[in-house]
Amino acid sequence: MKRRVFNFSAGPAALSKEVIQQAADEMMDWRGSGMSVMEMSHRGKEFTEILANAKADLRELMSIPDNYKILFMQGGAIAENAIVPMNLIGRKPQPATIDFINTGHWSVQSIEEAHKYAKVNIAASSEDAGFTYVPARDTWKLSQDAAYVHICTNETIGGVEFNYTPEVGDVPLVADMSSNILSRQIDVSKYAVIYAGAQKNIGPAGVTIVIVRDDMLGHAVPACPSAFDWKQVAEHDSMYNTPPTYPIYIAGLTFQWLKRIGGIAEIEKVNVAKAKLVYDYLDSTGFYINRVPVADRSRMNVPFVLRDESLNAKFLAEADANGLVQLKGHSSVGGMRASIYNAMPLEGVQDLVAFMKDFEKKYG
Amino acid sequence: MKRRVFNFSAGPAALSKEVIQQAADEMMDWRGSGMSVMEMSHRGKEFTEILANAKADLRELMSIPDNYKILFMQGGAIAENAIVPMNLIGRKPQPATIDFINTGHWSVQSIEEAHKYAKVNIAASSEDAGFTYVPARDTWKLSQDAAYVHICTNETIGGVEFNYTPEVGDVPLVADMSSNILSRQIDVSKYAVIYAGAQKNIGPAGVTIVIVRDDMLGHAVPACPSAFDWKQVAEHDSMYNTPPTYPIYIAGLTFQWLKRIGGIAEIEKVNVAKAKLVYDYLDSTGFYINRVPVADRSRMNVPFVLRDESLNAKFLAEADANGLVQLKGHSSVGGMRASIYNAMPLEGVQDLVAFMKDFEKKYG
Repeated sequence: MKRRVFNFSAGPAALSKEVIQQAADEMMDWRGSGMSVMEMSHRGKEFTEILANAKADLRELMSIPDNYKILFMQGGAIAENAIVPMNLIGRKPQPATIDFINTGHWSVQSIEEAHKYAKVNIAASSEDAGFTYVPARDTWKLSQDAAYVHICTNETIGGVEFNYTPEVGDVPLVADMSSNILSRQIDVSKYAVIYAGAQKNIGPAGVTIVIVRDDMLGHAVPACPSAFDWKQVAEHDSMYNTPPTYPIYIAGLTFQWLKRIGGIAEIEKVNVAKAKLVYDYLDSTGFYINRVPVADRSRMNVPFVLRDESLNAKFLAEADANGLVQLKGHSSVGGMRASIYNAMPLEGVQDLVAFMKDFEKKYG
Repeated sequence: MKRRVFNFSAGPAALSKEVIQQAADEMMDWRGSGMSVMEMSHRGKEFTEILANAKADLRELMSIPDNYKILFMQGGAIAENAIVPMNLIGRKPQPATIDFINTGHWSVQSIEEAHKYAKVNIAASSEDAGFTYVPARDTWKLSQDAAYVHICTNETIGGVEFNYTPEVGDVPLVADMSSNILSRQIDVSKYAVIYAGAQKNIGPAGVTIVIVRDDMLGHAVPACPSAFDWKQVAEHDSMYNTPPTYPIYIAGLTFQWLKRIGGIAEIEKVNVAKAKLVYDYLDSTGFYINRVPVADRSRMNVPFVLRDESLNAKFLAEADANGLVQLKGHSSVGGMRASIYNAMPLEGVQDLVAFMKDFEKKYG
């Protein structure tokens, strides 16, 4: 008898049960081909169709304008921390300047890597308050001539999220959306580049989605590896090197699942409801604590601590025994974290809150 | 009713049926965890165990000495074409020189990318004969002070393979073994670096294996992205960025399958038998032609043409109808190609040769 748990991992994270079931059913024989998707030539008619459908479905889901390319790459957001500057600083005389908004762990990672390639200007930061908020747009000190402005739209560790798309004029806006892509409606046309590791809201680790406006192509510095030069990747329709075919297939199944349930408008409603359920409960008790101001709270990652930290291990063990797994907080901040991405059903969050209430009754 | 075909794709390629079946069985619930492997945190106890076992099994299979690290990376061999020089040229004053042995399409790709980072010396080449042979060691003109010597041990398009490990003295020997790793016994200690995209003999596209001697770590040039700096990757046990967890899991299942059937010594016997079956038949007829001299023939990829090329489409269609798929040759050379990696059973090659004989009788 197989069991399925509610998996609150920050990533790689839970996928839709329907997606996993379909992948299992199609493993030995993808639709009469006699092969698993992972055994197919990437240039064969079967995989070519899988890739084309995944692209078309993502374009439809996010209303991606025609003047943007969708690339399937490798290395995740951490690799893009180098790949983005290598592709964009060539737009400006060297050394170019990059403006960063520093909202937490993942912003810091992007900033540290950018130092290899450019001058860095921290235009705004919430480091002063332990990365518990998103600096308001009117406090940002942008450079005169930056190659681009970089934001991380959701910080998985601090649990803070941009609830708006900032206006930055003519400067290209680049966003690491790894942990909230497809979770809420956004206007893609306000961004020059959006990138996201797949392993939170899209599919398995090993594929990176890059959505790039056409005028951002063709500026790579000479040292940029060809496989990571967006122009090369775009011209070869993500087949400059062999793409991660199986992760792309799973991403495509996720896109189809999202379309079936009504697209981003519908999943956003579920995400709002899930987040409200947890935060309302957190705000109603002093037994658990979340420190992020209401306006900046992430819908995707809810970090919280127990007032009595000595109960941490007991909380995790009892949660696990109740089929609520991977709730341990990031090692840098401790405590707990419930990551409630698209694939987490409302039922999972209801179970979590019910468990948290019981635990409070027992030990509060 | 699901069907399974014999899949002769050059890569992504067939995997062991046992591996695919196990992956299907474990998809919804990996060993009582309640999760698919692709949903697991890479830092959780379940995946940590999967990664450790995969490394240990590969080390055992290839008898990899203790002073070599095993890295799981992303981007395939095409990305390594940049990553290798970025990691190794720092060992020498700039600009460094790299010696290449040019044996075909994949060597050429490595050479072209290397021009971005170093001076290139083509120490030997078989381009004069359309890449149909491996230049003998005593014809190589190595540089005085190369950062390393690069070979591609098996060329999938030309169908030529090194049947020996060349001696190059103290200069580090670097090998792209994407298409023949694990297919034959080699002495790892003769190489400084071995790299291989997984999608031929190991697992799904999206994971690259790098086996690197300790003294090759720590020489990356400043522009090398941290995620591709072997030293960083080694120090973080392949978790500097989120690794491609599901492809690594499948690679691990393949390693376990190889161990069950007796390791590389045993699979090499099967590979020798499979190759002999096809080449013996090719040599017995003028209906099909392979142009590679016997000594340099690849055991993994058997390209051949029909004497009457107008029969190509008919050959492919009838083969496909007989469950023998993806036999079309690479677009740059035309004709046919039977890729018969580790996962292709002897039975598949027997079926192929029987079909080829029938086809010859019908149209010869």
